[in-house]
Amino acid sequence: MTIRALVFDVFGTVVDWRSSIIREGELLGRAKNLKVDWAAFADAWRAGYRPAMNRTAKGEWANIDTLHRSILDELLPKFDLRLSEEEIRHLNLAWHRLIPWPDSVPGLNRLKTRYVIATLSNGNVSLLVDMAKNAGLPWDTVLSGELIRKYKPDPEVYQMAARLLGATYEETMLVAAHPDDLLGAQRAGLKTAYVPRPLEHGPKPLVPPPAGAKFDFTASDFLDLARQLGA
Amino acid sequence: MTIRALVFDVFGTVVDWRSSIIREGELLGRAKNLKVDWAAFADAWRAGYRPAMNRTAKGEWANIDTLHRSILDELLPKFDLRLSEEEIRHLNLAWHRLIPWPDSVPGLNRLKTRYVIATLSNGNVSLLVDMAKNAGLPWDTVLSGELIRKYKPDPEVYQMAARLLGATYEETMLVAAHPDDLLGAQRAGLKTAYVPRPLEHGPKPLVPPPAGAKFDFTASDFLDLARQLGA
Repeated sequence: MTIRALVFDVFGTVVDWRSSIIREGELLGRAKNLKVDWAAFADAWRAGYRPAMNRTAKGEWANIDTLHRSILDELLPKFDLRLSEEEIRHLNLAWHRLIPWPDSVPGLNRLKTRYVIATLSNGNVSLLVDMAKNAGLPWDTVLSGELIRKYKPDPEVYQMAARLLGATYEETMLVAAHPDDLLGAQRAGLKTAYVPRPLEHGPKPLVPPPAGAKFDFTASDFLDLARQLGA
Repeated sequence: MTIRALVFDVFGTVVDWRSSIIREGELLGRAKNLKVDWAAFADAWRAGYRPAMNRTAKGEWANIDTLHRSILDELLPKFDLRLSEEEIRHLNLAWHRLIPWPDSVPGLNRLKTRYVIATLSNGNVSLLVDMAKNAGLPWDTVLSGELIRKYKPDPEVYQMAARLLGATYEETMLVAAHPDDLLGAQRAGLKTAYVPRPLEHGPKPLVPPPAGAKFDFTASDFLDLARQLGA
């Protein structure tokens, strides 16, 4: 098996969106003396993500910054959050400031010595660029469904990544914490590496991969993946 | 003037394509005992670049790897070069291994502390990714006309870069050694920084910018640009 390029799911796989959003909420709450269940808020924000993407598949395409904002606008009254436009904008950009899992940066640095490493996220390019700058994620380049205005698990998104990186589908491997994303990559012809992130949803237990799902690699974190891939 | 993103022309602006191609030719010539005027060869290869791009504007789009190969296939008999398919492929990928000007890496590292820095090249994404890995160019991301299958100076290429980086046109500045590229960016609404590279064409003197052309910055190299931009 020859692998040349590793493409990474980002939200949940590389960064801990839930703890990061809770922390951003707590910072805001401290500054404004708010009483909010920020864990419930983070989960509700994230829960709106897939339905919002599905809506764009039928109507006009919009990027994740825009979708996050539309979900946030619905959540503000539900959580009794009264914020200025500037505060709302800053909160919406919390997704540009998500914090990596502890193994992400050292693991990516090792993998980068041997492979092309790139994002392959539904997050928009500017979100991913800001996040990488903020967190020190050493991508060779940033790839996003935004480039073709489609969202994973549309097979064209995975195939675009291989094409742009000058690799065949079989030479390209998706690294992700989510079985549905990996199965999408598999249907598109890519290799797959499953890196479960048991803490992604906080106290809620992980949903295991469906029976019969088989991935090319399963690793406990990015350092383990680097070890298995000889990087 | 608020600038958030710097996008860079690559061939000639960041890397010294001519010396790099000559060196690759000399290495090949040494290995195979060939007598070739590699400077003339490099100039001829580069001279085919713009006409090849212009042809794609009328017919089917093709990326720069493909265009470089079609030009190379025409040059091989003219320079009496008899090479195996593997040697031709390796030579064609010389453009993935171009060497930066001495100020490029340290200048980009300084500029990166304050701005988003990205390529904005007609070179394809995989070429730019390989080059960055090989030469240590610290891009935040790689952008290319390939993403929308158009070539600079088409205004859509410059505007795509601003859009993907989440900046307005006025907040995005093209850094380039070539006045025609800068004028294209200007027509598209971007800011411009002119960094002439007097050695780009070897002994051939630089063509100065057309009378009346005005750029937002003119710098002697990337370190001078970083100084002027406070990075």
